[in-house]
Amino acid sequence: MSRGLTRVSREKFQSISAADFFYRNREIAGFDNPVRATYTIIRELVENSLDACEQYSIMPDVRVKLIDDGNSIYRIKVEDNGIGVPYEQVPYAFGQILFGSKYTLRQSRGIFGLGGKMAVLYGQITSHSTVKALSSTGGFEKYFYELSINVQENKPIIRKKEVTPNPGRWRGTIIEFSFEGDFVRAKPKIVEYFRQTAILMPYANIIYISPDGVLYRFDRITEVMPKPAEEVKPHPFGVDIEMVHRMINASRSTTLMDFLANNFHRVGVATAMNFLKSIKMSPDLNPKTMDSKDLVKLVSRMKDYGEFQPPDAQCLSPVGTDLLKAGIIREFSPEYVAVTQRRASAYAGYPFVIEAAIAYGGRVPITPADEMLVLRFANKIPLLYDLHSDVAMKVIKRINWQRYKLDVKTMPIAFFIHICATKVPYKTVGKEYIADRPEVEYEIEWALKTCARELKTHMGKKERAYIAQRRLTVFERYMPLLAQFSTELAGKDKPPDYEKVLKRLQAHAREVEQRSAVKAE
Amino acid sequence: MSRGLTRVSREKFQSISAADFFYRNREIAGFDNPVRATYTIIRELVENSLDACEQYSIMPDVRVKLIDDGNSIYRIKVEDNGIGVPYEQVPYAFGQILFGSKYTLRQSRGIFGLGGKMAVLYGQITSHSTVKALSSTGGFEKYFYELSINVQENKPIIRKKEVTPNPGRWRGTIIEFSFEGDFVRAKPKIVEYFRQTAILMPYANIIYISPDGVLYRFDRITEVMPKPAEEVKPHPFGVDIEMVHRMINASRSTTLMDFLANNFHRVGVATAMNFLKSIKMSPDLNPKTMDSKDLVKLVSRMKDYGEFQPPDAQCLSPVGTDLLKAGIIREFSPEYVAVTQRRASAYAGYPFVIEAAIAYGGRVPITPADEMLVLRFANKIPLLYDLHSDVAMKVIKRINWQRYKLDVKTMPIAFFIHICATKVPYKTVGKEYIADRPEVEYEIEWALKTCARELKTHMGKKERAYIAQRRLTVFERYMPLLAQFSTELAGKDKPPDYEKVLKRLQAHAREVEQRSAVKAE
Repeated sequence: MSRGLTRVSREKFQSISAADFFYRNREIAGFDNPVRATYTIIRELVENSLDACEQYSIMPDVRVKLIDDGNSIYRIKVEDNGIGVPYEQVPYAFGQILFGSKYTLRQSRGIFGLGGKMAVLYGQITSHSTVKALSSTGGFEKYFYELSINVQENKPIIRKKEVTPNPGRWRGTIIEFSFEGDFVRAKPKIVEYFRQTAILMPYANIIYISPDGVLYRFDRITEVMPKPAEEVKPHPFGVDIEMVHRMINASRSTTLMDFLANNFHRVGVATAMNFLKSIKMSPDLNPKTMDSKDLVKLVSRMKDYGEFQPPDAQCLSPVGTDLLKAGIIREFSPEYVAVTQRRASAYAGYPFVIEAAIAYGGRVPITPADEMLVLRFANKIPLLYDLHSDVAMKVIKRINWQRYKLDVKTMPIAFFIHICATKVPYKTVGKEYIADRPEVEYEIEWALKTCARELKTHMGKKERAYIAQRRLTVFERYMPLLAQFSTELAGKDKPPDYEKVLKRLQAHAREVEQRSAVKAE
Repeated sequence: MSRGLTRVSREKFQSISAADFFYRNREIAGFDNPVRATYTIIRELVENSLDACEQYSIMPDVRVKLIDDGNSIYRIKVEDNGIGVPYEQVPYAFGQILFGSKYTLRQSRGIFGLGGKMAVLYGQITSHSTVKALSSTGGFEKYFYELSINVQENKPIIRKKEVTPNPGRWRGTIIEFSFEGDFVRAKPKIVEYFRQTAILMPYANIIYISPDGVLYRFDRITEVMPKPAEEVKPHPFGVDIEMVHRMINASRSTTLMDFLANNFHRVGVATAMNFLKSIKMSPDLNPKTMDSKDLVKLVSRMKDYGEFQPPDAQCLSPVGTDLLKAGIIREFSPEYVAVTQRRASAYAGYPFVIEAAIAYGGRVPITPADEMLVLRFANKIPLLYDLHSDVAMKVIKRINWQRYKLDVKTMPIAFFIHICATKVPYKTVGKEYIADRPEVEYEIEWALKTCARELKTHMGKKERAYIAQRRLTVFERYMPLLAQFSTELAGKDKPPDYEKVLKRLQAHAREVEQRSAVKAE
C-alpha cells in the first residue's frame, strides 16, 4: 500500500492534442495498415476534391496519379478544378486536425473534417514527407505551400511559401505527398472505388493513373449536375441540450418565442406558439436566463411533440434518376434498368433521401448463387466493405423476389442503393456500412420494390414479345404448306392469299417487340 | 461558375475542439443510443476505478449504484479506494477530453484517456447534469468539486469547490452524475459485465446496486494480486518516424549510438553498435542534425533488423493461472478446469501474453448446438459484443476437438481467453473484438490446445474410474452367487472366502476414483 502511495507523484498527467490522439489511434480513420491506408488516402483526397467542386456547382475535373518511388514508398498527386482554398487558410486546411468547412448541417462527403489531414499525417509519420499544396480561388495569384504538421501541438509548420501570378485565372487545388503503402494489394479496391464513384457522377471527368502505368479514364457524358446541398437550421427532432444551449448563447433573442421561431428548421411563429402552449412554457421567458430544469424540459419535449413539420430535403443533393440511369448505362449497358427516387424522409431529425436502381442483362454479370451484386453509396461515396452487415443487404434478403418474377440467384441483376443524408447513420466510424434504422429500412424496401415492379413489367412485355415472335415463326413456316395442301385437297389450282394474314401477324409481333424494347437507351 | 465563386466568402472555415469533435461523433466512444450509453458509462467508470487501484497494488473495493430518477434519467455513483486524483488535477481528469495518465506504454484498461470524460459529457448533453467528484490521495484533506465541461473550448468549468479535513485518511474517488439512459434494455449486458469482470478479479470486492433494487455482490476470495504493469521504453519494432523524431527532440544524446542505447527497450550498447554497423550509419552522428533521409532509413531498417531481443513482459500484468482458476471456480464450480498462461510474445513491437482456460461440468451450462460459451477478456476487460468476429472464435472453430475427446457441441464446456498487451489489437474502436494477427492467433491456439490436452487426461481418468466402478458393481453382485453355486456344485458346505478378492477390487476402484478426483478444488 505504501508502495502505491509513493508512486502517486510519479504518475504523469498530461494533455494531448487532437492530432496526437488521431496519430495514436489512426485506425479510427481507416489507417490501420499499408493496404488500407493506400486505399483510404486516395479516397479521402478524391472526396475532398469532389466536394470542392460539387458544392459550388462546378463540373468536376479530377486527376489522380499514384507513383511508386520504391521501398514501399508511394507519391500521390491529386489535382482538381474546385473552388480552391483561400490563401490564408491553406496551412490549416492541410496541416491542422479538426479544422475545416464541413461542420455544418448539409450533405457532404466528409463528416469529420479529418480524412484529408489524416492522409497528410500518415504520410508524415511513415515517410517523413511534407505536403505540397498549390491552390488558387481563380484570382490574380496562385500560392504554393510546403507544410508539415506539428503533431504534439496540432499546428501546421510552413516550410516554404510562394505566391506567383495567375494570368490564366486557374482555379483549383493540387496536393502532393509521399507515404508508405502497399499498392499491389490495395489495387482492386482502388479501381473499384473509381468505377463506382463514376457511376454516380456521369457529369465528372475522372482520371486515375496507377503506378503500373495503367490510365483509368471516366469521361463526362452529361453537362447536367444535381443542385448543390444548402445549409439548414437544425430540426427540433435532431438537437440535444448542449446544442440548444449553444444556440441560445449565440442568439440575440430575448424571448423563447423569438428564439424558437428564428433558429429551427420548419418552426415558424405559429408552430413555436403552439408548441410552447402545449408544454406550458411562457413565450416571453428569456432563454438566456432559463434555469437548467427548464432547458432540459424544453429539449426533451421537442422530441415528443408531434406537430413539427418533418425536415425537408433542401440540405440534400441526391443524384436524381436521370443521372443515376446514365451512370449505370455507361458502366453496365444493361438490357433494362429501373431507377427510382423516394421522397425525403427523416430519422432522429436528420433528413435523408433514398435512390435505388435495379439493372438487368447487358454487361451485368451473373454472380455465383450465394453472392449478389449490390452497389451501395452514401452521400455519393461508394461503400466497398462489409456488405453483409449493411441494412441494404438485410432488406434485399427479406424481399420476396419471386413475386416480381425475378430470380436474383441466377439472373444477371445488379442492385444500386444510394442514401443522401445530413448525417448518414453509419454503424461504425469506418464509414463502411449503414445501420438498420427502421425509417431507412422502410425507404430502401419501397425503393427496391418500385424498381422491381417496373422490371417485372418489362420482363412481362419481353415474354409477350417472345411468344408473339414464336407464334409468327410457326405461321411463317407452315402457312405456305397449309395453303398448298388445302388448295390440293380442294382440287383448286391457285392457293389462297395467306400473305395478308402473315403480314398482319408480323406487324403485331413487331409492335409487341417495340413496346418491350430496351427502355434503357 | 460565377455563382460558385461568389460563394467562397460565405464558406465558413472553423476549428473545433477535441471535446466538440467527440460530442459530434460520440458513437466512436460507444455512446450511440441510450441503451449502449448506459452500459458504456458503467463500464468506463468501473474501469477507471479498477485501474486506479490495480496499478498501485491496492486491492480494489468498488461500489456502483445506479438510481432511476424517472423520465429516463438515471444517476450513477461510483466509489473506489484507488489512488485518488491529485487536488489540482481533478477538474481536468473529469472535465477535459484527451487529458489523462494513460498515454504511456504499459498495460491498462483505458487506451484513449477518453471514456470517463465521454461519460461525463454524455450526462451533460442529455440531462444537463454537472459531475460531482470527491477525491483524496489519503492526505490531510479531501476535496469536492462540481464541474461541467465547456465543450467548445474543451475546458472544465468549476461550479463548486470545497476542501474539507480528512481525519480518517480516506483515500479514493467518488464520482456522481446523471444521464439519459435505458436501464431495462441495458440490464442483461450490465450484469454480464460485472459477472465476467469478477471472474478475472477474485481479489476485488465489487458491489453493484441496480435501479430495480437488486444488490449484486462479488466478494474478494483471495488476498493475492497480480503484480502491476511497469512502464517500458518503446521497442524498435513498435516505433514510427514521428515517434523517433519526438524521442530525438526530447533526448540529450549527441550521438546516435548513445541515443539508441538509452531510449529503446531491449537495446543496449552492443546491440546498438551491431545495428548501426549493419545499416552502415555512423555511431557518432548527431541525431538532432540528422537529415530526413537518414531518419527514414534509421526507422525503416529498425523494423527489418533480426537481432533485436523480443520485447519482454514487465509492462504487462496478466492475471496468472491461480487467480484465473479461482475466479472460474467461484463463478462456475466446474467439475474440472484446465488453465494455462503462455509465455510473452509480440506483434509489431507490442508485447502480449495469452491466458486461457477450459472449464467442464459443474455449473457450466450446456449451450444450444450452434452456440458456444466463450468468455473473452482484453487487459482484464470483458468483451461482450461481436464474438463471431473475434479471432478467438476463429481459432476455436479451427481446432479439431475430437482429438481431445471433447464434443464442444453437447458437453458443458466454457472457454476463457485473456489477452494482455500494451496495445490490444482491437479490430474496431468499439473495443469489442480482437483482430486476427497471426502471432495472436498462434498463441491462442496453443493455449487452448494445452488446456484441451489436460482436460483429455482428466476425462480419460474419469472414464477409467467409471470402468473400474462398473466392474466392481458386477463382482459385488455376482461373486456371492458364484461362490454359492460353485460350493454347491463341488458338494462342499462352506463357500470360499471371496470377501478378500472383493476388498482388493474395492480398493482399486477407490484409488482410480481418487486419481481422477475433481482437480478443480
